[in-house]
Amino acid sequence: MADYQGNETLRMETFSDGVFAIDITLLTFQLKAPSLKAATSNHSLALALFHQWPDYIAYFISFTTIFIIWLNHHRMYNVIQRSDVRFMFYNGLLLLLVSIIPFTTSLLADYINTPANQLSSGLYMLLFASISCALFTMWNYATDNYRLLKRPAADVRIQTVRNSLLISTVTYALAAGIAVLAPFLSILLGLVIVFYLSRLKYHRGKVV
Amino acid sequence: MADYQGNETLRMETFSDGVFAIDITLLTFQLKAPSLKAATSNHSLALALFHQWPDYIAYFISFTTIFIIWLNHHRMYNVIQRSDVRFMFYNGLLLLLVSIIPFTTSLLADYINTPANQLSSGLYMLLFASISCALFTMWNYATDNYRLLKRPAADVRIQTVRNSLLISTVTYALAAGIAVLAPFLSILLGLVIVFYLSRLKYHRGKVV
Amino acid sequence: MADYQGNETLRMETFSDGVFAIDITLLTFQLKAPSLKAATSNHSLALALFHQWPDYIAYFISFTTIFIIWLNHHRMYNVIQRSDVRFMFYNGLLLLLVSIIPFTTSLLADYINTPANQLSSGLYMLLFASISCALFTMWNYATDNYRLLKRPAADVRIQTVRNSLLISTVTYALAAGIAVLAPFLSILLGLVIVFYLSRLKYHRGKVV
Amino acid sequence: MADYQGNETLRMETFSDGVFAIDITLLTFQLKAPSLKAATSNHSLALALFHQWPDYIAYFISFTTIFIIWLNHHRMYNVIQRSDVRFMFYNGLLLLLVSIIPFTTSLLADYINTPANQLSSGLYMLLFASISCALFTMWNYATDNYRLLKRPAADVRIQTVRNSLLISTVTYALAAGIAVLAPFLSILLGLVIVFYLSRLKYHRGKVV
Repeated sequence: MADYQGNETLRMETFSDGVFAIDITLLTFQLKAPSLKAATSNHSLALALFHQWPDYIAYFISFTTIFIIWLNHHRMYNVIQRSDVRFMFYNGLLLLLVSIIPFTTSLLADYINTPANQLSSGLYMLLFASISCALFTMWNYATDNYRLLKRPAADVRIQTVRNSLLISTVTYALAAGIAVLAPFLSILLGLVIVFYLSRLKYHRGKVV
Repeated sequence: MADYQGNETLRMETFSDGVFAIDITLLTFQLKAPSLKAATSNHSLALALFHQWPDYIAYFISFTTIFIIWLNHHRMYNVIQRSDVRFMFYNGLLLLLVSIIPFTTSLLADYINTPANQLSSGLYMLLFASISCALFTMWNYATDNYRLLKRPAADVRIQTVRNSLLISTVTYALAAGIAVLAPFLSILLGLVIVFYLSRLKYHRGKVV
Repeated sequence: MADYQGNETLRMETFSDGVFAIDITLLTFQLKAPSLKAATSNHSLALALFHQWPDYIAYFISFTTIFIIWLNHHRMYNVIQRSDVRFMFYNGLLLLLVSIIPFTTSLLADYINTPANQLSSGLYMLLFASISCALFTMWNYATDNYRLLKRPAADVRIQTVRNSLLISTVTYALAAGIAVLAPFLSILLGLVIVFYLSRLKYHRGKVV
Repeated sequence: MADYQGNETLRMETFSDGVFAIDITLLTFQLKAPSLKAATSNHSLALALFHQWPDYIAYFISFTTIFIIWLNHHRMYNVIQRSDVRFMFYNGLLLLLVSIIPFTTSLLADYINTPANQLSSGLYMLLFASISCALFTMWNYATDNYRLLKRPAADVRIQTVRNSLLISTVTYALAAGIAVLAPFLSILLGLVIVFYLSRLKYHRGKVV
């Protein structure tokens, strides 16, 4: 029985890893070679590439964010042993939200340089807030009364992680609000959360 | 021998998981940032995004449906131990049909808002009916005389699953027919089947 | 040592499976919803979809062919235990050729209905001939003096498979030649080879 | 503990393999069927295909380079047993850089035939130099005081690999410089490094 459940989370992890890997790679489509006429010079190509800076920034932030989400998803499954229907649906919801990232990324890249940058950066941060909230919900559900944890679960930092995921959710929501006033500050705040989430420890003895 | 066969289904599962994961992620291509001129305002962007509602609905339904198909495929392989050439071809047929989902999804999203919505939603449901039929065929073939099951298979709910997959196939076909009269009702019916399929139990002791 | 080598082929297999799964799914991009104006009727959409028949045929043939190549690749690795640098390069060459299939597929679909159908179907078959030749080379290298086989290899059908892969290579090359005279006959011949390759047995006791 | 760490690198490897496999397959998008009018002849199609030679060359070089990077990544993880946060970030950086390859590839293919070929081939080589540098950094970090290696690590060729990765990094950087004078020579040099990196041995007893 224990053996079966181990296999169960394994296959869900593999499927999730596939979706994460594809989503992180699909971001590349945001980066397109500029279409210039054949007689172009090195200088005009350099200029055209330089004008694509919003694409590069959006690519970088989305890549690191997906990587950190994957990392936290991964750390979470390190201490989770069992699964049930409801947890699978939470996981499915997470994947659905993560799969929308390439869309909000292209929205951000296309409009960060226009008067519509408040809406595009706001939606960008709102999606991250929802994803962080999905992780928070998964963790709460899995750790409530040690429901899906490996036993003994003494070294699992249930409360610390819960608080941290709550903080990141609230901060992302805040960043979405700040976007109305200062879109670039909001994006900067997003990078700070990425750094914060990268240092989250789910288990005392497991560093990654 | 038993060990080999276990490995056999494992690699087919991994390959199938890859195709499922890619197909579910390719749906994202349906979601495209609207192309507005540079001087756009937040308001006009919001309006343009709002007008994309058929894309969001189509994305959501297709995502959840692929997820549920994956879930059922996964539960099926939980109780299947062996494989043969014919079962592999049934599985290949299933993957071929699942890979067409992004196509019918974009068809639905592009035409649900036009007088051609009867055809587009009808084809959308017809594909799901075929997929459900493929799952039904796989299950029938695998469980007939316990052909590919793990033994003892006493707790496997062969008859219940058979009936449920037959019901979902017929209901999808019905939804395709209803699309001629009421496309939106047909889509709603599709969501009901997704919910129905999500609760299917293939084994008494295995909840997911 | 044996354990290591087992892991070695495992990771190459996983990587290859990933490439196969992505390539087979990328074929979907060939299928695009027709772009009609908003006031379109069900009838005009049906007509537009019907006119895409070359896309459907090309999709179907390429899907089944990639599936069969994967199946044979898979069966081959069932009896192969070791690996070396040269074998990895043969495998890499196979993946490079398989990754070109979506390109020749779109070439076929776009031009099968034009006077340029001889060239497009010829190149299509030529690529399959090269892939079949790559499989033939891999098998020859791996089985020569039982170099990379699991021992005892008594039940491995070395000679039968060698002949069959040679036959399919020659037939694909022939089909490429026939394309100059009769493109559709050439495509039909391709389907026959797919059927032929699907029945290849690499080991007496292993059915898939 | 040791068991856990083994699992840890395994999941990072699987995730990385996914990204590598997707990136190597996305290169296919560089290859597009030429858009000619319906009444085209075999001759004009052949001509159009021939004029796409920069696409084929760029595709070939990028494919082989990603394959070799994967191979070296793979060989590296053969002798690495443990992981920590910093190493995961180095690995994440490597994946970020590898994911940019399809972008620089299309840049190279689109501009190699124009006066802007110096910039496009220079950036192409610069990215490869960064990737080689990332591999060098990973290896240095992992082998420093045998930090993440399997013990006993006597047969691991720490110094040889370190030197080789340094050489390839410097040569790629050199190739980026040469691109200013002779773009095609620079590309040729890139192919030489691919061949050089393909022969790197990380462990005396492990050939692949």
